[in-house]
Amino acid sequence: MNMVAWLDGQPVESLPVTDRGLHYGDGLFETLAVKEGRVRRLPLHLKRLRDGCDRLGIRKPDETVLQQELQQAIAGQDRAVLKLMLTRGSGGRGYRPSEQSVVSRLLLRYPWPDYPLDWSGQGIELRVCRTRLGRNPALAGIKHLNRLEQVLARAEWSEGAQEGLMLDTEGWVIEGTMSNVFASPAEGRLVTPGLSQAGVAGVTRQYILERARGHSMEVEVRPLSLDELLGCQELFVCNSIAGVWPVRCIESRDYSVGPLTRLAATWAMEP
Amino acid sequence: MNMVAWLDGQPVESLPVTDRGLHYGDGLFETLAVKEGRVRRLPLHLKRLRDGCDRLGIRKPDETVLQQELQQAIAGQDRAVLKLMLTRGSGGRGYRPSEQSVVSRLLLRYPWPDYPLDWSGQGIELRVCRTRLGRNPALAGIKHLNRLEQVLARAEWSEGAQEGLMLDTEGWVIEGTMSNVFASPAEGRLVTPGLSQAGVAGVTRQYILERARGHSMEVEVRPLSLDELLGCQELFVCNSIAGVWPVRCIESRDYSVGPLTRLAATWAMEP
Repeated sequence: MNMVAWLDGQPVESLPVTDRGLHYGDGLFETLAVKEGRVRRLPLHLKRLRDGCDRLGIRKPDETVLQQELQQAIAGQDRAVLKLMLTRGSGGRGYRPSEQSVVSRLLLRYPWPDYPLDWSGQGIELRVCRTRLGRNPALAGIKHLNRLEQVLARAEWSEGAQEGLMLDTEGWVIEGTMSNVFASPAEGRLVTPGLSQAGVAGVTRQYILERARGHSMEVEVRPLSLDELLGCQELFVCNSIAGVWPVRCIESRDYSVGPLTRLAATWAMEP
Repeated sequence: MNMVAWLDGQPVESLPVTDRGLHYGDGLFETLAVKEGRVRRLPLHLKRLRDGCDRLGIRKPDETVLQQELQQAIAGQDRAVLKLMLTRGSGGRGYRPSEQSVVSRLLLRYPWPDYPLDWSGQGIELRVCRTRLGRNPALAGIKHLNRLEQVLARAEWSEGAQEGLMLDTEGWVIEGTMSNVFASPAEGRLVTPGLSQAGVAGVTRQYILERARGHSMEVEVRPLSLDELLGCQELFVCNSIAGVWPVRCIESRDYSVGPLTRLAATWAMEP
């Protein structure tokens, strides 16, 4: 697997059994792309991490230290994936967070995954997952460690589709299991689901939204039904590692890779 | 803290950083009371654990091995709390469970908590938490490791109430942060919230339900509003460690400790 890990800057292979990340999923994570020896879109990742700390009431880590640890982890690496996890640290029995708890910074470096090129060129197959996302504004948007819904959704299939589309328990389209989703209902228009009730507000989603708005494109962030999504002209998913993957089919419906998807893909590749 | 831990039967202080319990909360747990050197209601705990494994698609552990490990952990102990965690084991990057994954059995032994006697005698103060429980049938009922909602709820207060009452996002009463809740709307009648959408189906709740039915009591498991709960004659919460705690007040409303609560408390104490 060739994974390397650091806990609070020190090389490790394990972490204390008392860690609240393990006991309750009491923490946050970021998945960072390292390309040409550089962490991509670090300010956006750090901003989401700060937002997550605020939402969960977790003390924010010293970002100077964090950046030093990221640099240490990517020294000599051209391409890699970093997974940064922040947990509320070790605790005793019981849900109540201790005021003395010291946040743990766990950093894992993985080899860059070589996704087949045609996934970004010709597009991927998307399937609609049976597993739904619960709705809870208290946890929506942030990238916390309670990810059983994604695990159950991703366990639904092993062959065929490259990604699965998740709806919430009311049937609204939210995201992919590991990506955000965009659609183009008409030329020059882009829509992506609002994430106030469920889902993770991805950094690549955020970047594409900013670029599209800067491009004077009509961009809507709002509830999106499966029917409306299926009726759109272009569809794509995105995340920090994959960039943009056009959707070429959802189960039996086909889509072509259109100009807005191509444009978003170039934005996602920007440094 | 005086905690002792075993991973797959071997004494440990840490577990691999690749464990899916940490990364996704991809696992289950049971909190077991050890009294007079014996794990209480082990068959009910093992049944819930099996149900949880079925629901999450986690391979069920060998219960003979599990029981040996529990015995090893309580050797020479009169009273203790055991926390048994099952995770989907170590994995690589990504939500998809590997078919080769080997379930991890993490067992932690904690000292018995000496709750003040008047909590079970005169009752506790219950507060109504602001944090709501999301509704998702896929995760409701089982004791999985995605417990951020409970953490956020329990972080709402530090003094006063001994337990917090949680509603779901639609406003239905579900449970306490670490307990289930029962109410008596009238003499000889008992009601507890149904847990098909949210909540953990506690072993003590299950035992009380069985004893009440065996007692020919009128028992209802159904949606319960906060107004109806507040209007009940008797209220109590229960879990495997506390047994039964009568509720003597919810914020400004007072309740007396009634005969049904006393009866449930004796049931909870049964071996």
